[in-house]
Amino acid sequence: MSKIFVIGAGRSASTLIRYLLQHAEAESWQIRVGDLHLDLAMSKIDGHPRGEAVLFDSLDRSTYSDHIPWADLVISMLPASMHVPIARECIEHGKHLLTASYISEEMQELDQEAQQAGVLLLNEMGLDPGIDHMSAMRMLDKLRAQQTPIVRFESFAGGLLAPQSEQGNPWRYKFTWNPRNVVLAGAGAAVKFIQEGRYKYIPYQRLFRRTEIIEIEGYGKYEGYANRDSLKYIDVYQLRGIPTIYRGTLRRPGFCKAWDVFVQLGATDDSYIMEGSEDMTCNEFIESFLLYDTHDSVRLRLMHYLKLDHDSPEMEKLDFLDIFDDTPIGFGRAGTPAQLLQHILEKKWTLSPEDKDMIAMVHKIHFLDPQGQRCQLFSSTVVLGEDRTYTAMAHTVGLPLGIAARLILNGTIQLTGVQRPTLPEIYNPVLNELESYGICFHERETPVQFESMY
Amino acid sequence: MSKIFVIGAGRSASTLIRYLLQHAEAESWQIRVGDLHLDLAMSKIDGHPRGEAVLFDSLDRSTYSDHIPWADLVISMLPASMHVPIARECIEHGKHLLTASYISEEMQELDQEAQQAGVLLLNEMGLDPGIDHMSAMRMLDKLRAQQTPIVRFESFAGGLLAPQSEQGNPWRYKFTWNPRNVVLAGAGAAVKFIQEGRYKYIPYQRLFRRTEIIEIEGYGKYEGYANRDSLKYIDVYQLRGIPTIYRGTLRRPGFCKAWDVFVQLGATDDSYIMEGSEDMTCNEFIESFLLYDTHDSVRLRLMHYLKLDHDSPEMEKLDFLDIFDDTPIGFGRAGTPAQLLQHILEKKWTLSPEDKDMIAMVHKIHFLDPQGQRCQLFSSTVVLGEDRTYTAMAHTVGLPLGIAARLILNGTIQLTGVQRPTLPEIYNPVLNELESYGICFHERETPVQFESMY
Repeated sequence: MSKIFVIGAGRSASTLIRYLLQHAEAESWQIRVGDLHLDLAMSKIDGHPRGEAVLFDSLDRSTYSDHIPWADLVISMLPASMHVPIARECIEHGKHLLTASYISEEMQELDQEAQQAGVLLLNEMGLDPGIDHMSAMRMLDKLRAQQTPIVRFESFAGGLLAPQSEQGNPWRYKFTWNPRNVVLAGAGAAVKFIQEGRYKYIPYQRLFRRTEIIEIEGYGKYEGYANRDSLKYIDVYQLRGIPTIYRGTLRRPGFCKAWDVFVQLGATDDSYIMEGSEDMTCNEFIESFLLYDTHDSVRLRLMHYLKLDHDSPEMEKLDFLDIFDDTPIGFGRAGTPAQLLQHILEKKWTLSPEDKDMIAMVHKIHFLDPQGQRCQLFSSTVVLGEDRTYTAMAHTVGLPLGIAARLILNGTIQLTGVQRPTLPEIYNPVLNELESYGICFHERETPVQFESMY
Repeated sequence: MSKIFVIGAGRSASTLIRYLLQHAEAESWQIRVGDLHLDLAMSKIDGHPRGEAVLFDSLDRSTYSDHIPWADLVISMLPASMHVPIARECIEHGKHLLTASYISEEMQELDQEAQQAGVLLLNEMGLDPGIDHMSAMRMLDKLRAQQTPIVRFESFAGGLLAPQSEQGNPWRYKFTWNPRNVVLAGAGAAVKFIQEGRYKYIPYQRLFRRTEIIEIEGYGKYEGYANRDSLKYIDVYQLRGIPTIYRGTLRRPGFCKAWDVFVQLGATDDSYIMEGSEDMTCNEFIESFLLYDTHDSVRLRLMHYLKLDHDSPEMEKLDFLDIFDDTPIGFGRAGTPAQLLQHILEKKWTLSPEDKDMIAMVHKIHFLDPQGQRCQLFSSTVVLGEDRTYTAMAHTVGLPLGIAARLILNGTIQLTGVQRPTLPEIYNPVLNELESYGICFHERETPVQFESMY
């Protein structure tokens, strides 16, 4: 009998907990789920005989010893900043730990200690980071095994709407994950990547105007904008010397140009509280960023300010959000522009009960064939959500974690220390099992067309 | 015999030290000038019998007691962050202190202590802050004494080139003060002001596109862009409830639109080191911010990227800076975009031996006359530099400090505690003496024209 302790029962843990309970009988597991909200943990267990819900306050470290010594394996769904004290406790008691978060410096520093204790601290085991690493490394390692020179690596991912839920929404987008991260995407630091051996930098004020179109068979066209720092993936993927590396986020075409309206206004700024914003209307919010004028409407002034046509796709998207209405934002207190904008967006961008989300991930790898000809390997996957609880996001974060838990407990994965799933002994069995859940990457060789324009 | 200790003998101290030495005999002063570079301090004293140069390392606090107890009054020309330990030492030994820096929170906290010690810590006693406060408060206080409602306060200042030094330079600008502050102006925080009772915010990416034209008689037109936070002047100038307050920086018309090219490129970013920038050329620097392309020139691609005509005033200004040349930047080490840009600009924007600088300051105040009619009071001053040492900047920073020193030592100013020159007992005698040095504000009532468009 193996015991698994899952910390956090929020939306992202739904599929993970379901996976664990479904395998509990066959694998002889006992599952304990701890959350600050006991009822949330109980609802996820739903009376399963091999499940147990407990109250768990991650800020109260004295309670760690009530659960971590009990478990054989701990899965932390907490925010990344809270993983390190849990990892220390795991090392002390000789328990393995799984997370879906990037390896922080503090986490990396535990490597030696974990190795000495025979403990595996396996991180970046969700979607992004997680499935991106595994699917990319499998392709890259295969090419490398054939001594094939790799000359370009591009990767795109997006948390999106399933096509049937896009109807009537000109943005073809809703929040399917942390809305705050969506509003602040790209803010605060320049984007960095390499193209044909040249370092490239994009400031926030140009980021959403430099997109690339990506077509996914059966789903149509998407656009990608650059992620913050593609350079750090050079080491992670062992691509030192590669002339082009670029990672991006997927949206439907036209999203970025309309989003750029908010960027240009300054409406995504999170650095100051707006005066009088407790009882501001949407219209007043937008007006704060425009030139003073008593004659023309806010809508007309915005069009003039940003040189938009009244019937442009951008204005259609803004109108859809009711941002020119005289209705109060209703944030309840004074907020930053980013907080207020998020509150406005949530009115139209929150998933309805019937909405389904979707995850798309694409890799484009250029390599040289034996004749020295440049070829492109295009790999993509699309995952659709079941409903608002078992979302595509919950699937793609939870299934790799659940599968890894099984592989560790049954002895297939025998690593120790701080790891991420860029090793074949992790990514091969995990990707294989993911396929049985419909998370398959379709690879095809395509001709290299014109140059990418980021 | 009174003793004055001046800390810092840099460019900004030239006029101050000259003023003090010129008055030393008549006022019976002994002047000691301390600097980390003894020869710099000696060159400013230039053998004057009442002057003395000493080595002074502001980081070595043990040496404070060698000089501060000796003095009756200390004038610190150090960066603002270094004033507080000096102020503490001044309080301990009962000495007055003068600075040209904004009052920091830490400085403000010394108010009570300074009062109890009978010590005056007089700050913001240069140009901006300094002459701006004094000239504005004299106008505002006069209107208030007549019970005149003040409905708008606008103020602009700029460190510029004297008209004869603008020839052949399409920017009509060179660095006359800290170049780093010029390159980073407006970066990092949204601009805030109030217009007709509405709070207005401008993000960095729009700041240099929202300018206002200001004409100064005899000097022609300038443009003003908004300073970071105009709101804090509401309390400083006792203008609570005023519908419009706006402070800006002056440049020649067209400067801001061309400068915005660097902002849009991301070339003013100071948050990351550019890879390989040790031996980057100007052309490569600009290319880092553009789309990848092997066919067209960097100049053409920049025009296309930012939608500029090849014969536009912006391209003329960029060409003048030789930024499309294949010559190395020569920064000597890797740098941030802002550091590299500054280095490129310094080649063309450094004052030549024959160049003269100029300071311009303008206030526009709207008030209601007894009939309730809106009127405008326009006040301006222009100060020209003598040469590269006795610049307009050195005059306008140094003279208010020197005059204040004289007024304190001769008993005209008898305040204690932490102060700025918004009080009539300071601004009246200082402004009166500044006039004898040609720093006069010309006030005139003008009709209110069309609405300002920030």
